[in-house]
Amino acid sequence: MSSTIGKLFTVTTFGESHGQAVGAIIDGITPGLELNEADIQKELDRRRPGQSDITTPRSEADQVQIMSGLFEGKATGHPIMLMIMNTSMRPYDYSEIKDLYRPGHADYTFNKKYGVRDYRGSGRASGRETSARVAAGAIAKKMLNHYGIKIQGWVKRLGGIECKTFDADVIEQNPVRACDPEAAILMADKIRQAAAEKNSVGGIIECCLSGMIPGLGEPVFDKIEADLAKAVLSVGATKGIEFGAGFAAPDMTGKEHNDEISATGFLSNNAGGTLGGISTGQDIIFRVAVKPTSSIAQLQHTIDINGNEVECITEGRHDACICPRIVPVIEAMAAITLVDHLKRQVGLTMRLPSQD
Amino acid sequence: MSSTIGKLFTVTTFGESHGQAVGAIIDGITPGLELNEADIQKELDRRRPGQSDITTPRSEADQVQIMSGLFEGKATGHPIMLMIMNTSMRPYDYSEIKDLYRPGHADYTFNKKYGVRDYRGSGRASGRETSARVAAGAIAKKMLNHYGIKIQGWVKRLGGIECKTFDADVIEQNPVRACDPEAAILMADKIRQAAAEKNSVGGIIECCLSGMIPGLGEPVFDKIEADLAKAVLSVGATKGIEFGAGFAAPDMTGKEHNDEISATGFLSNNAGGTLGGISTGQDIIFRVAVKPTSSIAQLQHTIDINGNEVECITEGRHDACICPRIVPVIEAMAAITLVDHLKRQVGLTMRLPSQD
Amino acid sequence: MSSTIGKLFTVTTFGESHGQAVGAIIDGITPGLELNEADIQKELDRRRPGQSDITTPRSEADQVQIMSGLFEGKATGHPIMLMIMNTSMRPYDYSEIKDLYRPGHADYTFNKKYGVRDYRGSGRASGRETSARVAAGAIAKKMLNHYGIKIQGWVKRLGGIECKTFDADVIEQNPVRACDPEAAILMADKIRQAAAEKNSVGGIIECCLSGMIPGLGEPVFDKIEADLAKAVLSVGATKGIEFGAGFAAPDMTGKEHNDEISATGFLSNNAGGTLGGISTGQDIIFRVAVKPTSSIAQLQHTIDINGNEVECITEGRHDACICPRIVPVIEAMAAITLVDHLKRQVGLTMRLPSQD
Amino acid sequence: MSSTIGKLFTVTTFGESHGQAVGAIIDGITPGLELNEADIQKELDRRRPGQSDITTPRSEADQVQIMSGLFEGKATGHPIMLMIMNTSMRPYDYSEIKDLYRPGHADYTFNKKYGVRDYRGSGRASGRETSARVAAGAIAKKMLNHYGIKIQGWVKRLGGIECKTFDADVIEQNPVRACDPEAAILMADKIRQAAAEKNSVGGIIECCLSGMIPGLGEPVFDKIEADLAKAVLSVGATKGIEFGAGFAAPDMTGKEHNDEISATGFLSNNAGGTLGGISTGQDIIFRVAVKPTSSIAQLQHTIDINGNEVECITEGRHDACICPRIVPVIEAMAAITLVDHLKRQVGLTMRLPSQD
Repeated sequence: MSSTIGKLFTVTTFGESHGQAVGAIIDGITPGLELNEADIQKELDRRRPGQSDITTPRSEADQVQIMSGLFEGKATGHPIMLMIMNTSMRPYDYSEIKDLYRPGHADYTFNKKYGVRDYRGSGRASGRETSARVAAGAIAKKMLNHYGIKIQGWVKRLGGIECKTFDADVIEQNPVRACDPEAAILMADKIRQAAAEKNSVGGIIECCLSGMIPGLGEPVFDKIEADLAKAVLSVGATKGIEFGAGFAAPDMTGKEHNDEISATGFLSNNAGGTLGGISTGQDIIFRVAVKPTSSIAQLQHTIDINGNEVECITEGRHDACICPRIVPVIEAMAAITLVDHLKRQVGLTMRLPSQD
Repeated sequence: MSSTIGKLFTVTTFGESHGQAVGAIIDGITPGLELNEADIQKELDRRRPGQSDITTPRSEADQVQIMSGLFEGKATGHPIMLMIMNTSMRPYDYSEIKDLYRPGHADYTFNKKYGVRDYRGSGRASGRETSARVAAGAIAKKMLNHYGIKIQGWVKRLGGIECKTFDADVIEQNPVRACDPEAAILMADKIRQAAAEKNSVGGIIECCLSGMIPGLGEPVFDKIEADLAKAVLSVGATKGIEFGAGFAAPDMTGKEHNDEISATGFLSNNAGGTLGGISTGQDIIFRVAVKPTSSIAQLQHTIDINGNEVECITEGRHDACICPRIVPVIEAMAAITLVDHLKRQVGLTMRLPSQD
Repeated sequence: MSSTIGKLFTVTTFGESHGQAVGAIIDGITPGLELNEADIQKELDRRRPGQSDITTPRSEADQVQIMSGLFEGKATGHPIMLMIMNTSMRPYDYSEIKDLYRPGHADYTFNKKYGVRDYRGSGRASGRETSARVAAGAIAKKMLNHYGIKIQGWVKRLGGIECKTFDADVIEQNPVRACDPEAAILMADKIRQAAAEKNSVGGIIECCLSGMIPGLGEPVFDKIEADLAKAVLSVGATKGIEFGAGFAAPDMTGKEHNDEISATGFLSNNAGGTLGGISTGQDIIFRVAVKPTSSIAQLQHTIDINGNEVECITEGRHDACICPRIVPVIEAMAAITLVDHLKRQVGLTMRLPSQD
Repeated sequence: MSSTIGKLFTVTTFGESHGQAVGAIIDGITPGLELNEADIQKELDRRRPGQSDITTPRSEADQVQIMSGLFEGKATGHPIMLMIMNTSMRPYDYSEIKDLYRPGHADYTFNKKYGVRDYRGSGRASGRETSARVAAGAIAKKMLNHYGIKIQGWVKRLGGIECKTFDADVIEQNPVRACDPEAAILMADKIRQAAAEKNSVGGIIECCLSGMIPGLGEPVFDKIEADLAKAVLSVGATKGIEFGAGFAAPDMTGKEHNDEISATGFLSNNAGGTLGGISTGQDIIFRVAVKPTSSIAQLQHTIDINGNEVECITEGRHDACICPRIVPVIEAMAAITLVDHLKRQVGLTMRLPSQD
């Protein structure tokens, strides 16, 4: 189902950029989990527009409300509906874009598929939909924390600039969410420069799932990396994903790539934390390619809904690079996937009671 | 469900390398589709071991039998069960490997997950399981052909050698399935050399879905590229996937990356044939990273099931590079995914368009 | 998934009796469907408490709000979230019931399953949850109307009184929703009498799906009556369902039961509108057994959460018979099931037939 | 999916009456479960044609073969494919029935839905398909046995004759599978009489799930009785299902119907073993209406595929009553449903590890 993901832990989202609200129903939450709106708000604030000078100046409060599924501060095991009202909708004249297909946007495909389109902003294809994912992911993260599993993402590369060092502590200390504080400064400049040029830049996000439990994921179709890939590439603007050695693996030999094992554990992690689609207990590491923002205030060639050639400029309050704000979205998708597999595992491979 | 993929077109596989048979139940086949075993055998022969001097000398006949769902040469719309008997199981002494974890294999994770393991070969994690996928994919391809959709994959890079040219006609004419005949010769040598050195090499597969219909895929979670990524990364030995510009997109600007549109169509295809998770009608292009074969006949460090350090050599009849044989597997997964989305779009018992 | 039903037309509900709101996300709505809150409110008003003197005097406004998925008065094809705020929550002392298991209620099983329970009212097991179903069903009905399919339910039997006649026009004209106006008067008296005696009564609902399209439903597991049965028996207080001749069929012979066919159609409808799990185009007819309301203000024996025997009286504003109000709920579940099968048959973004 | 049932324990069937084989892929089997073909054959023999003089004289061996998923006599946790070859296909002239719609059969609806039909016998709508369900159910039963859960069905009523007594020990001792040995004799005569008159009779099956674990089933849509109803009514020839007091509940008062609780347990079981859709731990009891066999060797009116009125006689080796043979099918569907919910339960409501 397009708007639902998961099997035992399910997230169903709703809402478009210019409707009344976006949100989600999350089902399969462990009963008894302590939870409040602040737990969720904390993650939403990391995705929020207007959080720094390198993100869009649009200033959504993104205030989450929990509408069900809690009792006396704890999850009941029944679905939580959470909702974020859309507050920053400016009266705006859409007549310019309503009949044309903005390059890089879903305008064209939505019209082809549905025959109708909510032309105010990007509707359901808007990045705004991801706030529901982040909110759901916050709950997933809290469940994972009970098992000692942590998920952290960061910007690894941006606008051609690569991080040279890794320091987990700096990630949330710089507006780019880069893992190298010096690169972070260059990257922030790159974003400002792109904005000034009415252009945009992309980047690579790296994400690490640590404290992993071995045995998560299923062989054949529901391999843990297959499900992570689906979840992550369901986020708009992503163009690829690689695990462990990833696209460097093709140039390695088997002897180089195989992760040998000693009595104290694996000696390397080229596989990225899985074997045969199942977690080994090592960190799961993946990287995601993020394209430059499609909305740029430059003249581009396109057509209108009648097929006539036109020129268009995508005005509006857009991020010149969405990497800093996409980090929590990718973490959320990883968390949602992992909780689903954690729950499947307990169910699927339950041990038989003794038969005495 | 681990052994089932798809929603309206579903493939459920069974079988392990050393059991009696592998196969699949395929449901959601368009009633009236003409089909016979030769249609399927043709694709299986592309995946078959022993097809050339650069693949494993193991010689499985891989003869498919259709056990249900056909009547008078046509699909009835009811499930087809197809089965491939395992014939090449040599009496073999597994005592050496039964208690240890081969590096790069699922031995370790299967034991952690299930508490038991079929130690004859790789059991369910064996590449042999993919023959069921190829067989199912052959049916999917035949359905897609009626809509004018073609799927073709090829080796783009292997052992560090990159194809410099592209000629669709040469792909099936060289044993590597490379798109450049000169590179193909070097790649074949590379494989022979790796085999001689008891080592292995990896590569990159590129796949093109042409004749696409606009409107396939759903926004939000079931984006067409998200589902393709899941399907493809559910194939063992894959380490990453990228669409269109892929991991090159992060270094592009929005102006460079956006595919502008003219009255005669899109002016470029950096997006790889989708916008907002939905097909544009352009070719869908993706690339897959394939790791070097894990089974190498060299001494490697590992542990046994009791945690003791041991050395192991994975003897046996293995491919020094699985790229030539993985091409039809990846095509099959793409075909299965595409038919599922086609049916979502037009319904379970959609009629075939005429083929004039 | 517990809170989601359907495959191509999915309804995911949330909310408990004493939370902030109940509602649903409905996905798979045909793009272009004209829809407004009044379409939904009309059905909610049929389920609403306080609609007559024989229903609970609790007076919920049950005002629906559409929060997403509409644009310019039409469905966009993206999920609609609709929400009904809970307004009639009286400050109430739950200390009496919080530690005991009310007979006939889910208190016992919720505690056994989840280890925690929202003891304010019946939480997620409350009939209040069904208002979300009715709202979702209103959308399904509107889609079915475009295909000429109508769904109508009525009270066939109540408190031992059986309808002797059938007049579709009287159903919504009497507070019982009986199909026989004279029986309706006796039934209403029966409900008042039960209420006066602090007791409750049950009944049988009959439901007819007319204007059916042949070919809906799938053979084997997803037979149309199997899916209708699941949908209908997922409504609390139902104890059985039968199709066509139902529990009378066992006493018939094959010759009596078989529906013969003439050039102008079937000569009878003992099968209830399906053959082999697929609709024939005849009316689909089923009956549902509804138990007497569990909440009665009489002394009953039960135990508390520590296993001690206690006596309990379920005070509160309850219906002495839920039959009149369950009719729209059962219609809704039938409508939701039917739309899902219609879409499976014709696809996710099927266009509406013209309505001439 | 039409040919798949279940979420964590899934059964996917294939095969038609006159194809090569029928069978199933069963996934989600607990690893380590001891299993062999005799465990399955035992149940198949209860469904087998030709088992007594009151069943069809057709004599299928119904010999099951396990093709995957076992290792050293134990389930590996990977899918088991089991297959039953069709051996009793007589050369037969189908020209008489190929163009007409037999009353009570799926011929009409299959043609309407698929546009094509395997007219040899009933194809996929044949009762033969249920042998795959029985085989899968045998595995489910074995898993349930480890938890102390037993499933037993019996004939409660047949051809208008009702069992007056209940003795579990006699059920498998009489060819009818009635729970009352004296009624069994009358019932057997009734079947022989119907056969002699080229007619058929129906009956009611009762089924008991004992040794239940409290907490199985989910509130809202996946109530345990909703899922049991779907599973059972997906068996051909069933026309209704009721739980506990069932269709008698509507005539009871709340005071009569509510099951009060004492320190030693529930004082009655009108609910049939569930509250709020979740098992209480009491026996789950349900009854199923089974129609008289549709295939009768009497003249009946029908039409051919061109709409012309014709007369037809359904010759062949048919049961004059399928009740004795449907008992194991209904048990199988209950077992499959229960295992699925058992596995969900362990997964869905897993407890949080302590956080010390």
